[in-house]
Amino acid sequence: MGFNLEDTIALLSRTPPSLNVLLRDIPRSWTQGNEGPQTWSPFDIIGHLIHGERTDWMPRARMILQHGESRAFDPFDRLAQERDSQGKSLAELLDEFARLRSENLHALRAMKLESEDFDRRGRHPALGVVTLSQLLATWAIHDLTHLHQLSRVMAYQYREAVGPWSAYLGVLHCQGHGS
Amino acid sequence: MGFNLEDTIALLSRTPPSLNVLLRDIPRSWTQGNEGPQTWSPFDIIGHLIHGERTDWMPRARMILQHGESRAFDPFDRLAQERDSQGKSLAELLDEFARLRSENLHALRAMKLESEDFDRRGRHPALGVVTLSQLLATWAIHDLTHLHQLSRVMAYQYREAVGPWSAYLGVLHCQGHGS
Repeated sequence: MGFNLEDTIALLSRTPPSLNVLLRDIPRSWTQGNEGPQTWSPFDIIGHLIHGERTDWMPRARMILQHGESRAFDPFDRLAQERDSQGKSLAELLDEFARLRSENLHALRAMKLESEDFDRRGRHPALGVVTLSQLLATWAIHDLTHLHQLSRVMAYQYREAVGPWSAYLGVLHCQGHGS
Repeated sequence: MGFNLEDTIALLSRTPPSLNVLLRDIPRSWTQGNEGPQTWSPFDIIGHLIHGERTDWMPRARMILQHGESRAFDPFDRLAQERDSQGKSLAELLDEFARLRSENLHALRAMKLESEDFDRRGRHPALGVVTLSQLLATWAIHDLTHLHQLSRVMAYQYREAVGPWSAYLGVLHCQGHGS
């Protein structure tokens, strides 16, 4: 499956409402629990997704179109949600994520990208040269890596409740792969 | 987090609509792709979840209440969806999953389980003695193990499109943990 803008937008537009249905008004024990010190709860994960909408994906797409490889992206702050989510409810974060994603996809469509634009190059501060299509594909798969993490964190809360079935539940044996 | 019936139902009631929002009408390249021979696509996963609603969770709960440890559960057919999903659309499967889950949760509530019921014991054909609360907790975490798998399978379709960002996307490094 090669990069396709419509396929990418189709996924990006569905993750916020899907997470909203999964998490809104669910008991807090599912959304506030994490996997131990220095790990994220579902609440933290939604805050991280919001920060990406504000500072990562579309600002980087604009930088590729405006500056190409001449200017490296600003580094992404992976801990910003600790500061930005303080005092907010999960419902507020879910609303904010949905609103920002909608605005960003509207802005993406307004760029009226053509197929030759997808090979335009930018510079990542650590990874080096990347293309616009790689950035947009990563935006979508970044949603999935955090859906993968979120399902693992929620499952962890019932790791003892399932008893011997733990042996059959792969999600309880996931080591997180660094995310 | 110990077992709690209302927490468990809260999760079980949200996974079908959440998967519906994520997958309905999304391009087929996201839902028909798998991870190679003998692996499952999102389409296959929804079929597997349907089969669990029909033959696994509530039939086993009833067997615990009626027969206790005296009779082992029927083994669960992990490949039944290949037969049962044939000729159906993903939209039909999503509708079927939502309907069966709703019926099963209605039946679960109608059991009017009390806290002492959760320790009632049954016999798993491979795992041995299990309790009703372990069965119900596993029902919920089984949803999450397949949400974890589904996010990984969808991400796999863009494993090359993301280019060097693959290094940062944990979901692309998940080995599946046997699920």
